[in-house]
Amino acid sequence: MKRGFGSDNHSGISPEILEAIANANVDHALAYGDDEYCSRVGDLFRSFFGSQAQVYFVFNGTGANVLSIDAMCRSHHAVVCAESAHINVDECGAPQRIVGCKLLTVPTPDGKLTPELAKTQLHGFGFEHHSQPHAISITQSTELGTLYTIEEIKALVDLAHSYKMYLHIDGARLANAAVALGCSFKEMTTDLGVDILSFGGTKNGMMMGESVVVLNPALDVELKYRRKQMSQLCSKMRFIAAQYEAYLTTGLWRRNAEHSNRMAQMLYNAIKDIPQVEVQYPVQANSVFVKLPHDVWTGLQQDYFFYDWDEANDVVRWMCSFDTTEQDIQDFVAALLRRLK
Amino acid sequence: MKRGFGSDNHSGISPEILEAIANANVDHALAYGDDEYCSRVGDLFRSFFGSQAQVYFVFNGTGANVLSIDAMCRSHHAVVCAESAHINVDECGAPQRIVGCKLLTVPTPDGKLTPELAKTQLHGFGFEHHSQPHAISITQSTELGTLYTIEEIKALVDLAHSYKMYLHIDGARLANAAVALGCSFKEMTTDLGVDILSFGGTKNGMMMGESVVVLNPALDVELKYRRKQMSQLCSKMRFIAAQYEAYLTTGLWRRNAEHSNRMAQMLYNAIKDIPQVEVQYPVQANSVFVKLPHDVWTGLQQDYFFYDWDEANDVVRWMCSFDTTEQDIQDFVAALLRRLK
Amino acid sequence: MKRGFGSDNHSGISPEILEAIANANVDHALAYGDDEYCSRVGDLFRSFFGSQAQVYFVFNGTGANVLSIDAMCRSHHAVVCAESAHINVDECGAPQRIVGCKLLTVPTPDGKLTPELAKTQLHGFGFEHHSQPHAISITQSTELGTLYTIEEIKALVDLAHSYKMYLHIDGARLANAAVALGCSFKEMTTDLGVDILSFGGTKNGMMMGESVVVLNPALDVELKYRRKQMSQLCSKMRFIAAQYEAYLTTGLWRRNAEHSNRMAQMLYNAIKDIPQVEVQYPVQANSVFVKLPHDVWTGLQQDYFFYDWDEANDVVRWMCSFDTTEQDIQDFVAALLRRLK
Amino acid sequence: MKRGFGSDNHSGISPEILEAIANANVDHALAYGDDEYCSRVGDLFRSFFGSQAQVYFVFNGTGANVLSIDAMCRSHHAVVCAESAHINVDECGAPQRIVGCKLLTVPTPDGKLTPELAKTQLHGFGFEHHSQPHAISITQSTELGTLYTIEEIKALVDLAHSYKMYLHIDGARLANAAVALGCSFKEMTTDLGVDILSFGGTKNGMMMGESVVVLNPALDVELKYRRKQMSQLCSKMRFIAAQYEAYLTTGLWRRNAEHSNRMAQMLYNAIKDIPQVEVQYPVQANSVFVKLPHDVWTGLQQDYFFYDWDEANDVVRWMCSFDTTEQDIQDFVAALLRRLK
Repeated sequence: MKRGFGSDNHSGISPEILEAIANANVDHALAYGDDEYCSRVGDLFRSFFGSQAQVYFVFNGTGANVLSIDAMCRSHHAVVCAESAHINVDECGAPQRIVGCKLLTVPTPDGKLTPELAKTQLHGFGFEHHSQPHAISITQSTELGTLYTIEEIKALVDLAHSYKMYLHIDGARLANAAVALGCSFKEMTTDLGVDILSFGGTKNGMMMGESVVVLNPALDVELKYRRKQMSQLCSKMRFIAAQYEAYLTTGLWRRNAEHSNRMAQMLYNAIKDIPQVEVQYPVQANSVFVKLPHDVWTGLQQDYFFYDWDEANDVVRWMCSFDTTEQDIQDFVAALLRRLK
Repeated sequence: MKRGFGSDNHSGISPEILEAIANANVDHALAYGDDEYCSRVGDLFRSFFGSQAQVYFVFNGTGANVLSIDAMCRSHHAVVCAESAHINVDECGAPQRIVGCKLLTVPTPDGKLTPELAKTQLHGFGFEHHSQPHAISITQSTELGTLYTIEEIKALVDLAHSYKMYLHIDGARLANAAVALGCSFKEMTTDLGVDILSFGGTKNGMMMGESVVVLNPALDVELKYRRKQMSQLCSKMRFIAAQYEAYLTTGLWRRNAEHSNRMAQMLYNAIKDIPQVEVQYPVQANSVFVKLPHDVWTGLQQDYFFYDWDEANDVVRWMCSFDTTEQDIQDFVAALLRRLK
Repeated sequence: MKRGFGSDNHSGISPEILEAIANANVDHALAYGDDEYCSRVGDLFRSFFGSQAQVYFVFNGTGANVLSIDAMCRSHHAVVCAESAHINVDECGAPQRIVGCKLLTVPTPDGKLTPELAKTQLHGFGFEHHSQPHAISITQSTELGTLYTIEEIKALVDLAHSYKMYLHIDGARLANAAVALGCSFKEMTTDLGVDILSFGGTKNGMMMGESVVVLNPALDVELKYRRKQMSQLCSKMRFIAAQYEAYLTTGLWRRNAEHSNRMAQMLYNAIKDIPQVEVQYPVQANSVFVKLPHDVWTGLQQDYFFYDWDEANDVVRWMCSFDTTEQDIQDFVAALLRRLK
Repeated sequence: MKRGFGSDNHSGISPEILEAIANANVDHALAYGDDEYCSRVGDLFRSFFGSQAQVYFVFNGTGANVLSIDAMCRSHHAVVCAESAHINVDECGAPQRIVGCKLLTVPTPDGKLTPELAKTQLHGFGFEHHSQPHAISITQSTELGTLYTIEEIKALVDLAHSYKMYLHIDGARLANAAVALGCSFKEMTTDLGVDILSFGGTKNGMMMGESVVVLNPALDVELKYRRKQMSQLCSKMRFIAAQYEAYLTTGLWRRNAEHSNRMAQMLYNAIKDIPQVEVQYPVQANSVFVKLPHDVWTGLQQDYFFYDWDEANDVVRWMCSFDTTEQDIQDFVAALLRRLK
């Protein structure tokens, strides 16, 4: 299928990742994470996230999010999140089924929770008829391509902790956020008191494999059993560890994220002044959401694959990936302009 | 780590598989299985399992087993299985947590259920205080390296169906069974009326990826939602499909399984007449279980990695893999003989 | 504790109910519902709800609601309901934990869903990332003391069925609705195509015991096992059946509901023209919601027990019960007037 | 239905209990346990079980057992119990569905676990593939009418604690055990270090209502939310408390239990020397299990209601209740003798 703007998981595998898999394909290794690769990459994570960080590799983003929630919450707890959060709209109720807990969702203008928005759900503590708010979950960068600043994350962490709650980041696109903010992973998470993190790689050039990074040691309780029960324990785990090793040590995470972010900016700059195109949110990571005349976007879908986001309102999402080229952008804009005539 | 006899998932990836992954790494592909690879491999599975077969790729064996059970059972149902079944002893209670159902286990002499053994659990039908037996699950080849014959499987299928129950095969090592029995996958499953199958590849040379093959269309109900909820929906699914494509079309499944079975036979023949070594079960697939003097097996573990199976009784498991060499067997037997002196 | 306006479950047991329990206390009876009382009352329910009705007695309202949801939905399904629904705000996430499903909530002005409001959640069908809307649940009379008309219920039933979804009524206060609307239970449920009903008695004079009435036989599948698994199977069930028998055959349901509704009207009429008292919703059943100056309602709580409903906005709930007397209303209003001075 | 020997929950309500319910039926009381009855009876439980005891009223025995297990275990844990335990054979998999955990069952000769039997399941600690044994559950008196001595309970408590596990007693018939052993409830539970208890009343003359008594304060964590989520929170809870108050303060628990135990002894003495009747277990509480010729017990069922226990082996259960009379025993034995001719 031709390169399009459907999702950053429509692209394949970065060559560095494939090479790392091949390089790890020697000899035997203990299964289920008891191997030297996993041990080494565990240390590598600590060098990125701080000495108390403990990483649990899992298979995919839903697995990472559900295990993170499971680490924070029991079934009578609730997670406060934006209405647009992936855990709310894109996981088919996995947190409800697997953890048994409730999500308390808040509408947001741009995919971002604020302390004020979160507080609307912080009540009923101690009342046994009410699911007890126990965690706040935010996505960085958000599902709408926007970013939390360092200060905004800190404010939410402080709010959570003032209620004895935890703060989770769904970092399926954490690399895009880090390069956009010009900060390290640690400055955006551990240093702010973030408790637990879903740290993704698949959307930024890895083949398969995500991770839960426990930053608050109080949450690192019997997670190995919980991961296993959720069918998220990989047998040949060295091949997830090896991907992360290449991802983190070669700077691939940064190169790929910088590239996809830059492609989104290039696309944004090329279309922002077109009268019939209404950009919906600040373009801060690797996606562009626009409102277009109905026949224009449906026509353009014949040229390129991309998703409508809000069909009723003619809003579509264009997602750039690590393998999007400048030529792709130019050609896509040209196609758009043809459809707009 | 030196090649040992710990598990067939201690070995890495067959070169054919790695090549298939690399070959699939071109262009974009729709995520979550809506791509041409998955479509093509779906047809390929039908050519192996019959025209009604529907495949659901998942990440690992526990995921395949739990999704299979979820397809057959609701929480008030029970699955009859051997006490030694992987779903009973090696999945940390995943079926209980995720499906909510009960396992009704039966001790067996050799890891194999029989109609007589299974019937000991077939009672209480219609009685609401009793978890309702709704499925029988067997493992082929078994966790103890033994095999069900075609007739034995048929008898269990017939028993299950006579009670309006389903029959599931945990086929993490189905290839080893097929080559040992000299039959096709279909002859061992679909043709006998097997309802659903966990069909593994990871233990026989694949990198990562397993599958649920629904053979009874009545069970193919809303499974796509259930897979997603269980965090078993892979985003870049083409890379699982591509592995299976190479596995099935190049005959790799057969070559690898024949080899690991042959290595187990070679090992068995080399040790079966040693007086201090008691082989525990017929060696019919790729593992050898033996009872040894305590200091012998603990000493031998200093030379080679392998697991004790029943420490209290000094029974250990030696598992051969697709990459075990004849030299490995010779060296291992030599080391054993040294320890026996 | 003095009679107050806290809740209709703060009152005790109607004498007719206690007498029925005593009358049933003779001889032995089979446990778990296999007795003549349950058999007879099952028929009695059919005379009230139609020949296809099947009743399952349970212990409490949460049990009735969760079993009803369990009859309609599996874990990948979602229930559309008002944000103020008891299943959303007052059951500590029981539907999420026990059924594993999701609630899709809609803010409403008066506790009532409409087809337009419900439709905002009816999307994503067939998309495996999205919990599949599978039921609509409404409460009659609502948690805010308002009523659905027959036509309004019919419109929601039709909407649900047009999407192949089910309609559930949480009828913890169904009797109050029936007397207010001047219709039979059947006219408000079965005749409109309602699929399943939580039919309460505890809030209207019974001691303990609620019921799930299955009106759509397609939902009556293995519920007896599901009820047992949820710990909702009563051993001495004759004592629940006997309460319902007295409740339904002596007209107690009607007398008690008419009385508590009338008390609420009396209270409403006595306060509706007081300038500092803002009635929040139409008073259509047995509760009155008012907004009051903060010091007035907190002061009045020293005289009478009642709950604040929305503390931040100074809204409180006054609930009348079957044992509320005209004198209680007069005294309460007098106390209010004293506090308002 | 004529009094038979089916179950101790086939009998009705002791007059003292019904009177206590009627006496509590005055005025209003806060719902959900926040009333003076529950407060007072909470203290009463402490006078029976020790100052640290905390009681949670629930609706039935399954509810009490599941809440107890939920207090001890998370889903990756396992409960060791006798194969004949009520939680294993008579709760339709409620622990699996609601807690998500596993039961590790052990066959026993007489319904009683021993340290030796329990130890057969105490392995795999720390191994994430294995459900972690975390509690031992015993039933006192057992489902087979046998009794644990004080010393036997103590030995199991010590075993559990030596593995950092908890010990739970299913005390649906704890009163029968206490009178048989001639000890107090406290001597049989708290004083031995028992961690948590399901303390029943329904089978011994109460109408409806059971309790979880938390004896180890470390287990008293957020149970109120868990009880609510399981639909076990009674609204008019004063009527459960009042039953327990009469049960405990009037000596009813003792009178009823002594009587039903005595009736079982009387029955046992009358039949023990009949050649065709084989008593199966020591008669230590209120039930008698016998093996009889097939046509005898099926014939006798035409005269009296009772259950077969093991139909294949012609074993039946005769259960005495608080309302069984000496005349009942004499008539029953006479009927048996007629059938034996």
